[in-house]
Order: sequence, then C-alpha cells, then structure tokens
Amino acid sequence: MNNHNLKKHISGQFNAELEEVLNQVLVMGGLVEQQLTDAITAIHKQDVDLAQLIVANDSQVNALEVDIDEDCTRIIAKRQPAASDLRLVLAIIKTITDLERIGDVAKRIGMMVVDNANKKQPPLVSMENMGRRAVKMLHDVLDAFARMDVEAAIEVHKEDAKVDREYESIIRELMTFMMEDPRSIPHVLNVLWCARSLERVGDRVQHICEYIIYFVKGKDVRHRSDEDIHSMLDR
Amino acid sequence: MNNHNLKKHISGQFNAELEEVLNQVLVMGGLVEQQLTDAITAIHKQDVDLAQLIVANDSQVNALEVDIDEDCTRIIAKRQPAASDLRLVLAIIKTITDLERIGDVAKRIGMMVVDNANKKQPPLVSMENMGRRAVKMLHDVLDAFARMDVEAAIEVHKEDAKVDREYESIIRELMTFMMEDPRSIPHVLNVLWCARSLERVGDRVQHICEYIIYFVKGKDVRHRSDEDIHSMLDR
Repeated sequence: MNNHNLKKHISGQFNAELEEVLNQVLVMGGLVEQQLTDAITAIHKQDVDLAQLIVANDSQVNALEVDIDEDCTRIIAKRQPAASDLRLVLAIIKTITDLERIGDVAKRIGMMVVDNANKKQPPLVSMENMGRRAVKMLHDVLDAFARMDVEAAIEVHKEDAKVDREYESIIRELMTFMMEDPRSIPHVLNVLWCARSLERVGDRVQHICEYIIYFVKGKDVRHRSDEDIHSMLDR
Repeated sequence: MNNHNLKKHISGQFNAELEEVLNQVLVMGGLVEQQLTDAITAIHKQDVDLAQLIVANDSQVNALEVDIDEDCTRIIAKRQPAASDLRLVLAIIKTITDLERIGDVAKRIGMMVVDNANKKQPPLVSMENMGRRAVKMLHDVLDAFARMDVEAAIEVHKEDAKVDREYESIIRELMTFMMEDPRSIPHVLNVLWCARSLERVGDRVQHICEYIIYFVKGKDVRHRSDEDIHSMLDR
C-alpha cells in the first residue's frame, strides 16, 4: 500500500511554509466543492437565490488561485526546493488551475439557473445523479490530496468512466426531449451545456489525481489510460 | 511601447537552456496550430483522411507537453532561477497546458469528422469563419510569445470577443436547423460541440496572453476584463 503521510514527503527545512500553502489549497478545494454542491442543488430546486450566491462567490475562488500561485512562486524563489519538494509545489500550481476551472463550472450553472428563472423547465432529475457523482469525485480527490494517497487517487481516476456513462445517458434523454418538442430546444441546450460542464469536472478531477501520482511517484501519467497507469506504477 | 526582445529578459547564466525550452514551446505551438488548421479544413471539406491524421498526431502534442514540463522542472531544480527567469519558466509550464488542451480540441473535431463520414451533413460554412479566427488568435499569441510582446498579447486578448460573437451566431443558426428538422438533432449536436470547443480555444489563447503579461510585467491579470488589464498596466 502507498498510503503516504504527507509530512513524510516534506523536508523539515520548509515544512511550515509548504503546510500553510497546502492548507490554503484545501480551503480552496472546500470552497469549490461547496460551490459545485450548491450548483447541483440550485438546478434541482430551481433556487435562484442560491444561484446568485454561487455567481457572487466565484471571485473568492479566483482570488485564492492567484494568492496560492503567488505563494508557490515565492517559495520556489526563496527556498529553491528540489526533488519531491519541488514536485509538490508544481503539483499545487497545477491543481489550483483545475480547481479554479471547476469553480467556473459552478458559476456557469448558477448563471444558467438565474437566466432561466421564469421559464418552464423540463425535468432534470438525471442531472442531479451525475452532478452528485462529480462532486463525490472532487471530494475524494481532495481527500487523497490531503493525504497524498496514491491508491485513493487511482481509485478516483477510475470513477470518471461512470460520470461519462451517466453523461451519455443524459444526452440521449435530452435529445429525445428536443425531438419530441422542438420548441424546447433553446432551453434544453442550456441544460446540455451544464451536463457537458459537469462531465468535464470529472476530467479535471482526473488531472488532480495525475498530479498526486506525479508528486508521490515522480512519474508523469498524463494522457494515459487507467490500465497504462497500473502498469507504469508496477501494480 | 513594450515590444521587448525575449533575450533581454533572460539572465546570461542559463540563456542556452531556457532558449532551447522556448524553442520547444514554439515547436509545440506550431504543431498545435497546424492541427487546428487541419481540423477546420477537415470539417469544411469533410476530409476523413486528414481527420484521421489529426487524431493520430495528437500523441505528438501530448509527448511534447510532457517533455517540456520535465525540462522546466529540471531547470528549476538545477538552476534555481529567481525573479523574471522563474516567472518565465512558470509561464511556460502553464502555456503548454493550454496548448495541449487546444490540441485536444483539434483531435475531438477530427474524431467527429471520422464518425460522421457517411452521414448527410448540414452546411457548416459559418464554422469555418470562427475556426479561422480562433487559429489566427493562436498564431498571433505564439508570435507574441516568441517576442514576449505585451502590446501584441493585449491585442490578441481583445480578439476573443469576436470569436464569442461568431459563436453566438452559429448557435442561433444551428438551433434553427434543429427546430426546422428535428431528425437532424443528433448530427447538429456534434457540430455544436465542435463550435463550443472552438469558442473555448479563444479562452485558452487568452490565458496564454495573460501568462505573457505576467512574465513581462510581473502582474497577474487572470480573471480580469480587457478594461481592467488596461488600467492595471497603467496604459
């Protein structure tokens, strides 16, 4: 088992600074997870107030990205980390980019709910299931990140296939809607964009899994299938 | 005018190494530009052979991303760059991520053309215009990157509004198609995904503009409007 404890990976030399940055990443991750959870609730319940709150909160996510990025640059310049310390800082820089883009998905969904406040909606129940699954992937990858747990990261990586399958099924359902009632097309397209964005959340979570593996194992597993990753890590 | 020459920005100390990496970024950028140009041609001419070539070439783009990323990590570990040298390396690391994702857009378009080889197609002329505009943005940002030209980067950043407008117009056109002939919906949706992906190319090129500004000016202008960027740079 590769259930590493993060502290083991950090040189004593700049423990405190790196831990502070890691805490900030988890704060950012928690905020993005909340935004995405709220976005799913906002679609499901057509809750315009909540949707407006999500849109307003996105600037906090953006600000965290910029702050953490600055901290990482400062640490590299001042501490000149090497080996796994450097890999950790680089993994953080990449992780926050994907977190910020997941935050954008929540914001876009919020804007869609606000825009469609007074229009008749087709049922969207199936979006909720896919949404919850994407949120769970995000939750689990943040958990794996906090512990730099490669095994957990590999498990989360595999979950994306399920999100993809639910996405395909939603697309088929929405196509049927459009064919049966062409007047519904403009609205259904908005729902389609949301579904597409949620599907992309799964891809972005996979990137974060890859950064965790890169940090702990020193191996770049981007652009690899789940099977390739297994054999690259000799499992 | 801020038409900086790149060499002015690099410390003599590790000129050669950084220049080599920058050349690799431009090679990768050139390949991605070619892939995207070919993708537009493949849709327009329904050229399945070309589409298959694009799909096959994507692994080259991915390999370049991984290689350049490794080179950047090695340079940071070995050379311990500070100030603008470090900003340059970090700007490169982020730029290649966006280039790789633009490469993915070309690949997805190629796959769509292959999948639809024997089906009846609605006219797609308007996609070509937007596509060419997105390719031009990419070409111009690579040019700005090669010269680290902030003025040029700001101009390219503004161009995205035009891509967005063409995208909106294509979406309206495709919605009309679907409403008039609901049987066309599955195919039109494929075209919609391509249009959406091309629209996102503009956003990714904007990110690269922001990295150029960050490197030269040391200011993080992400999440800012064109107007904000102007005032942040005291122009």
